[in-house]
Amino acid sequence: MAPREVDVTALVEQARAGSARAVARLITLVENDHPALREVMAALAPHTGNAHIIGLTGSPGVGKSTSTSMLVSGLRARGLRVGVLAVDPSSPFSGGALLGDRIRMTDHVLDPEVYIRSMASRGHLGGLSWSTPQALRVLDAAGCDVVLVETVGVGQSEVEVAGLADTTLVLLAPGMGDGVQAAKAGILEIGDVFVVNKADREGADNTVREIRHMISLGDRTEPGLWRPPVVKTIADRHEGLDEVLEALDKHRAWMADGELHRRRVRRAGAEIEAIALAQLRARMGVLGHGDDLTSAAEEVVAGESDPYAAADRVVAAL
Amino acid sequence: MAPREVDVTALVEQARAGSARAVARLITLVENDHPALREVMAALAPHTGNAHIIGLTGSPGVGKSTSTSMLVSGLRARGLRVGVLAVDPSSPFSGGALLGDRIRMTDHVLDPEVYIRSMASRGHLGGLSWSTPQALRVLDAAGCDVVLVETVGVGQSEVEVAGLADTTLVLLAPGMGDGVQAAKAGILEIGDVFVVNKADREGADNTVREIRHMISLGDRTEPGLWRPPVVKTIADRHEGLDEVLEALDKHRAWMADGELHRRRVRRAGAEIEAIALAQLRARMGVLGHGDDLTSAAEEVVAGESDPYAAADRVVAAL
Repeated sequence: MAPREVDVTALVEQARAGSARAVARLITLVENDHPALREVMAALAPHTGNAHIIGLTGSPGVGKSTSTSMLVSGLRARGLRVGVLAVDPSSPFSGGALLGDRIRMTDHVLDPEVYIRSMASRGHLGGLSWSTPQALRVLDAAGCDVVLVETVGVGQSEVEVAGLADTTLVLLAPGMGDGVQAAKAGILEIGDVFVVNKADREGADNTVREIRHMISLGDRTEPGLWRPPVVKTIADRHEGLDEVLEALDKHRAWMADGELHRRRVRRAGAEIEAIALAQLRARMGVLGHGDDLTSAAEEVVAGESDPYAAADRVVAAL
Repeated sequence: MAPREVDVTALVEQARAGSARAVARLITLVENDHPALREVMAALAPHTGNAHIIGLTGSPGVGKSTSTSMLVSGLRARGLRVGVLAVDPSSPFSGGALLGDRIRMTDHVLDPEVYIRSMASRGHLGGLSWSTPQALRVLDAAGCDVVLVETVGVGQSEVEVAGLADTTLVLLAPGMGDGVQAAKAGILEIGDVFVVNKADREGADNTVREIRHMISLGDRTEPGLWRPPVVKTIADRHEGLDEVLEALDKHRAWMADGELHRRRVRRAGAEIEAIALAQLRARMGVLGHGDDLTSAAEEVVAGESDPYAAADRVVAAL
């Protein structure tokens, strides 16, 4: 994509004034790794830090879209501006399609106070794709009070969403994610709030009990530590919505005593590190094109040097 | 593991003199990322570059161990010293077990001219686990004429083995890997030699035809380019062994005209880059412990800086 001139200041002002179009353009700049991105991020920085970032994760079939839609309704009823970012780590598709295919969300697509965006996560380096945190910055700076980040629970992505969010909501459904499976998948550690959706199905109470039991076995029962609540919902009927919102509120209030700041510093640190590593990597030269790297590699192949000594020289040359 | 004093010079000398024990210890140093590793690699460097590194990959069930064993027999019959490195990218196990459970290889475990080692691949950064190339250096410097690197074909690992080897041998079996599947998995691009094992099974000729057809559709038919041969084998009876060895010889001879050097430079470059990035990452400080990184992250959270500007400062501070 050829760089286009972008009036960053105007775009950021429009986004902050409530233009969904400007928000969409900013996220597209993020996705395309546009040259203006540095300027965009610098312009956004003073306006960030207000949104409550809530990560939603769970296996396919637990009702993530329906639950997201329910939460959006509940947050809108409170008069809040809401962003929704759906991250699909497995999708090779990129370019930021709107969620046209996600019927459940059509309730909200015409609401000017709701921004909905789908993103493919790409470019992992050290485990963090930094287009997602940057898109969160856009939504945050655009005045969203809450941003919901939804990831398909496929392996690592469940754990990664926890790194992106202030509060992580883990969705389960009866018979799908029992306690032992949850423990194996590592989601017991990452969940701040557990929601057992499809609670009208057989086994829902069992799932709740099991998750509670597994949580009680963890190290989260000391005084002052957060003990994740387990809430039942039937998302398509909005049953349990108030209880979920209350649990999210409580978690945010609990975090106010330092934990929110700690989480955000950790998150920013990971983001900075990923960007710094990418910069260093670019400086070293794309594999085989960087002169320093290639001449170092030639010496290693000739047996005149070893990879460690060569790496020292490449690092020193940066 | 507490660092122990290691007499690197003696160990490298013993390994080069044919001590399987010394070779094993050196690979264990690699696996444990031992402090003496830099010294080991420097001592090995002048003795590397002689081994023909052959990557073997294929889906579970195609007969990788049997084929490896067959190749070892054939290479031993030529009087060559052979190394076998089995890399399991999915295994959380590490510590370099001998392949005690791999019955097919028991034919060779008592042969002093055959080194067999199993490794878990770990610590991916930028896609390359550098314990494997380092273990290959050990086997190369220890005087192996040929090193077979066997990886379980699970997703990316098939493609990664191609990055480790001079020659990549892709194993298929009738009905398991037809042409279209091979194309989808990306193995048509990485295979230098294709072997259809279990050729006494129904459909073997079909599989051969399909692979040949898919290869003919690729861009490998120009004069001077290598056109991967497709060979049939029945590995447990050693049928087709001579044809496979001949194909490997031909590929090596073809590579002598510059391609071998290009592949090795590319490989060394990737290895150096991975080590350099790991060093830089370590310098930045483990997430949340590095002072520069933490103070930069604090500023980003406070909205006083953005991740790009912060990354610039972290990089400058290195």
